[in-house]
Amino acid sequence: MSLATIYKEIKHELNAIEKLLETVVEADQDILTQASSQLLKAGGKRMRPIMVLLAAQYGERDREDVRKIAVALELIHMASLVHDDVIDNSEMRRGQQTVKSRWDNRVAMYTGDYIFSRSLKLASEIEIPEVHQILSHTMKEISLGEIEQIEDQYNWTQNVRTYFLRIKRKTALLMAISCQLGAIAAGAPEKVCRHLYYFGYYTGMSYQIIDDVLDFTATEKQLGKPAASDIKQGNVTLPTLIALRKENTAERLMTALKKGDKKTHDWDAIIQLIKDSGSTSEAEKVSTQYIKKAYDQLTYLPQTKTTKHMERIADYISKRKY
Amino acid sequence: MSLATIYKEIKHELNAIEKLLETVVEADQDILTQASSQLLKAGGKRMRPIMVLLAAQYGERDREDVRKIAVALELIHMASLVHDDVIDNSEMRRGQQTVKSRWDNRVAMYTGDYIFSRSLKLASEIEIPEVHQILSHTMKEISLGEIEQIEDQYNWTQNVRTYFLRIKRKTALLMAISCQLGAIAAGAPEKVCRHLYYFGYYTGMSYQIIDDVLDFTATEKQLGKPAASDIKQGNVTLPTLIALRKENTAERLMTALKKGDKKTHDWDAIIQLIKDSGSTSEAEKVSTQYIKKAYDQLTYLPQTKTTKHMERIADYISKRKY
Repeated sequence: MSLATIYKEIKHELNAIEKLLETVVEADQDILTQASSQLLKAGGKRMRPIMVLLAAQYGERDREDVRKIAVALELIHMASLVHDDVIDNSEMRRGQQTVKSRWDNRVAMYTGDYIFSRSLKLASEIEIPEVHQILSHTMKEISLGEIEQIEDQYNWTQNVRTYFLRIKRKTALLMAISCQLGAIAAGAPEKVCRHLYYFGYYTGMSYQIIDDVLDFTATEKQLGKPAASDIKQGNVTLPTLIALRKENTAERLMTALKKGDKKTHDWDAIIQLIKDSGSTSEAEKVSTQYIKKAYDQLTYLPQTKTTKHMERIADYISKRKY
Repeated sequence: MSLATIYKEIKHELNAIEKLLETVVEADQDILTQASSQLLKAGGKRMRPIMVLLAAQYGERDREDVRKIAVALELIHMASLVHDDVIDNSEMRRGQQTVKSRWDNRVAMYTGDYIFSRSLKLASEIEIPEVHQILSHTMKEISLGEIEQIEDQYNWTQNVRTYFLRIKRKTALLMAISCQLGAIAAGAPEKVCRHLYYFGYYTGMSYQIIDDVLDFTATEKQLGKPAASDIKQGNVTLPTLIALRKENTAERLMTALKKGDKKTHDWDAIIQLIKDSGSTSEAEKVSTQYIKKAYDQLTYLPQTKTTKHMERIADYISKRKY
């Protein structure tokens, strides 16, 4: 299952989004222009704009506000990626050098700030107070998630609930509001907006869990960045947490994680222990449970072509291999 | 001239602002709570809230929106200081360790993001579209200013106009909109809002120039951070730019700045050259010209006690010694 059918269907609208993205981040400054256009060119699946555009089909889809929301949310996503690369000290993303690697952390910080401010500028043109409240609440939650990610790094004894809250803030909320705000901007009924919010939320949870699984199971080429970089950076994800709770693995894994420090850990052995524990397929099951919840939300919506597309998105997310 | 008269006059309102500031940045997370409260305790003169509160006196000053604007703008200011400390690699500010020094650059980046998101949340509660447009435009300009500061570092041949545009973005705009938005939130007449904007703008330009002069002329104790840290960090300010244009200094100064690199420069000799050139007092004169323009804006406003206070602010800024 791929997103091709959807891309084809909303091609014109997506092209308009792409153009608006380019226009919005244009700047007079060399560094900014280069950094922003590198980010744009690196692409990405534009999941959030797609969600906005599809959600808008439950209302009056052609509104200018819909396009602004789509671009604003993609920019927020891009800005948070740039800042994440600083936190994770990442050199590569989507097969491209990161901003922090091509320039430095300071440039990455301010490029993020700039892209974020452009997003705000666009959002400020939307005269629906609810939109601003939802956006600013989400921004707060995202930044809390970012700080938590630092606080929880290398904390191998953390609660699984901590992980779920973190990925909610890191990923699921932005997808939730992509669906919700697309519908709100298009003037869709309140009930529809609510179910779309939860559809986006569950889909986002599933998406991030799969991401965390793939970090262990996919190749460097598939990922566009070194494999197993999460755990090496101290980011404790679901496969690790499950492995740490498995009878046959827990003790050996914890011993390996306690031996030495992050620089002297035998990462290859640690990663192999986690893979061998079968925890990645258990994590996949958790992801599938979330996708089921996402499907469930769709049953409350009108059974249209759009809802079929939403199903395709959930399907793609649950089955993607990289 | 001090701000004591004004503090006394609007003490209750300022206390309310202080409480709201504390409430707004409260977080469940240790690092964030500590970092934010350290920032709050480090104080500052609360120039921007004072400007908002005074400007609101040209309308219905008791509106809740006025307080929200005051807190939102102070938070934006604080967030940008935290990010600036990363750029400047500063260990100390206002006599206190900076966030980036007590924790690290990543924590500083995210503390800034968090405080900024709190500001947005508060601002989003204000249902005046113009406020959001002004705020987001200013955010964009501020982040452009931050990137410019990186681009222009150690560029000794930069234009003086580049400097003025940079300090406009770095400082003057936020003061301009403090006055403007305070008045808008209080429902003051449009003409009043416009003159207050320019009053804040000219005052802010003057303020930053004095700041840049004091960096050369005040002591470490007065500054709460090492003296002459601007030039050592490659931040090219007005006294340096003027010295580089003075017949008796230019050549020797440029030779000194070109010799070796930023680590091997003879900074003491360079700083002495600039001080001896008399460029700091010339920069002060430029600052005074801006203050005159600020005063001039006040003549268009009703000649009330509030306008007298605005004069006091301008007076304080033009005469402050640290």
